Amino acid sequence: MRVISGGVCAPGGFVAAGINCGIKKKKKDLALIYSKVPAVAAGLFTANTFKAAPVRLSKKYLSTGKAQAIIANSGNANCFTGTYGLIYAERMADAAAGALAVKKEDVLVASTGIIGRPLPIERIEKSIPKLVESLSDKGDSSAAEAILTTDTFIKEIAVQARIGNSSVKIGAMAKGAGMISPRLSTMFCFITTDVLITPEALRYAIKIAADKSFNNITVDGCMSTNDTIFVLANGLAKNPCISLRDKNFSLFCETLSYVCLEMARAIVRDAEGATKFIEINVEGARDEALAREIGLSVANSNLFKTAVYGESPNWGRIIAAVGSFGLKVKEENIRIKFSSFRRKNVKIDIILGIGKAGCRIYTSDLTPEYVKINAAYN
Amino acid sequence: MRVISGGVCAPGGFVAAGINCGIKKKKKDLALIYSKVPAVAAGLFTANTFKAAPVRLSKKYLSTGKAQAIIANSGNANCFTGTYGLIYAERMADAAAGALAVKKEDVLVASTGIIGRPLPIERIEKSIPKLVESLSDKGDSSAAEAILTTDTFIKEIAVQARIGNSSVKIGAMAKGAGMISPRLSTMFCFITTDVLITPEALRYAIKIAADKSFNNITVDGCMSTNDTIFVLANGLAKNPCISLRDKNFSLFCETLSYVCLEMARAIVRDAEGATKFIEINVEGARDEALAREIGLSVANSNLFKTAVYGESPNWGRIIAAVGSFGLKVKEENIRIKFSSFRRKNVKIDIILGIGKAGCRIYTSDLTPEYVKINAAYN
Repeated sequence: MRVISGGVCAPGGFVAAGINCGIKKKKKDLALIYSKVPAVAAGLFTANTFKAAPVRLSKKYLSTGKAQAIIANSGNANCFTGTYGLIYAERMADAAAGALAVKKEDVLVASTGIIGRPLPIERIEKSIPKLVESLSDKGDSSAAEAILTTDTFIKEIAVQARIGNSSVKIGAMAKGAGMISPRLSTMFCFITTDVLITPEALRYAIKIAADKSFNNITVDGCMSTNDTIFVLANGLAKNPCISLRDKNFSLFCETLSYVCLEMARAIVRDAEGATKFIEINVEGARDEALAREIGLSVANSNLFKTAVYGESPNWGRIIAAVGSFGLKVKEENIRIKFSSFRRKNVKIDIILGIGKAGCRIYTSDLTPEYVKINAAYN
Repeated sequence: MRVISGGVCAPGGFVAAGINCGIKKKKKDLALIYSKVPAVAAGLFTANTFKAAPVRLSKKYLSTGKAQAIIANSGNANCFTGTYGLIYAERMADAAAGALAVKKEDVLVASTGIIGRPLPIERIEKSIPKLVESLSDKGDSSAAEAILTTDTFIKEIAVQARIGNSSVKIGAMAKGAGMISPRLSTMFCFITTDVLITPEALRYAIKIAADKSFNNITVDGCMSTNDTIFVLANGLAKNPCISLRDKNFSLFCETLSYVCLEMARAIVRDAEGATKFIEINVEGARDEALAREIGLSVANSNLFKTAVYGESPNWGRIIAAVGSFGLKVKEENIRIKFSSFRRKNVKIDIILGIGKAGCRIYTSDLTPEYVKINAAYN
């Protein structure tokens, strides 16, 4: 596997575009990804009770296991918007479907931004012809730009791998900087691939990949209402079709996991107001779930995060966080190691000494700038 | 019941003192509370796995259900200090016991401050004679001062109530400003009373009182290793002895709960870097535990806390927090009300519409100042 240039347009048959439709004043706020041929599709969504309208709609559309396009806006989450929320999300899919000459059920929808304000659907509908016109195989960066909120840089990647005797590509774009927590977060990740794969294998693969990436990052422990991961696989690589029992399945999973982890790490690197990138490596746990829980407990501790910001290796705060959920481990068996807090990249090792499982969590520091950004955002 | 002046020395038979023993440079750092007669005693401690040495020692001493003194230091938590931690905590009790001519098992010990550094026990031992000499019935404020860490004001209260035909007093002092979370926190609350009560009834009463107060506050969701609540009841009020089955038990509980709630609220008012005092009132829940969990989920949301700091009524963040743990409630049934975010005291009502139980949670905003305080503290 190797990293190649580009993003979601890198795999064969995908085009994309990003434009301003007037939700935001000047910045791009509407993105479209389109596969020229029908694609197998899977998605993962926030576990929040109050799922945004586009999340509920896309979940329904994905029951077919296929899709051909993704339309997404930033600047408005279309969440907690009542009955109209769902109607507007559907109109968004319908408008894109009309212009692309596909069925509306083949258009997945995602929205991100402020919660509780009506989606300006007319502006979106009016801009769809221009959006579709702008579609190009060089549109990946524009599309990646149009889904950003408080992000400071676009997040995209493309990789190429040999699967069987075929060359397969995966492209991805993501957004997210705040309201980032495990079990997904205020993030999007849209993944395209030309791999030929069964819907069942794709669903399984994206779950495995998310578990090794997006479920191991946190910025502020706050769970969003709009998180969405979509993956479209259009089969143009013409590899022998990958099923769950196929020997190439694990190879595809690894490649997909790499893509997801790079996107997840990019989100943490762009964490609101952050000055540090923190890697917490938990070892010697009874099982991976416990290791993850402990790592996240440290990663979400405001006192730990401010200590890293202050470059003050106050390891008592790590201990306090590890101990905060009643774990049965002896003081004398636990070991904590850490790199200098003065570096941009800080690494913490927590060795529990009660088993063999581990987990790696990624997070950022908590800074006055994070507070200022979120005090002003509305 | 009425509030009277003073603190832990208000009830008959209690004296207190606070001095500097050299753990801190100049500020008071060693406190002593002493009952002239043996007292019935109860305590509550942090649920953290890594309990500080004084917590483990005091838990053991409290198994007798009685005590006569409390010695506490600030500036050093005596936590994660290995075998010596426990030896030093015991030496601290022993030194005070010697000077007071009581058994060491009758002296409860508490420490707060930085984790993982050896307790300077010699300095404490050397200062005990001076500490005991300073004991006076006007020493409550000095003692309350000596347990402070990042606190900006002392926290004490005294109340008087009629129980049966006797006049009973309760006095209390507390500390805490950061690392404050439910299931106790980096806080102390030492309570004295001249009520006559059985050990069993006292233990039960303090649990009830803590559940209505300290378990409903959070500053940063970080659980400490040293939290301690002690209550000493010396019986000098000569009321008919209160047992669990007594009709006066609930009256005593109410009075004790009032004292604990006032101390808990004082801790939140002194929250590190805070500019706001936030009351979150959850109603219409299935049970109180659920109401508390939801209230705390909002109270611990950094995004909610920064919105309050920014005086930006971004209620979507309340919704996101309420929904973050998979509650089964419909969007159209939940109601959120809030006072102006521009006031110093902000009130949030969350009405779930799925039951009749409720809970009131107290918290503070998250400010750049909180980050600065904790980036520098070591």
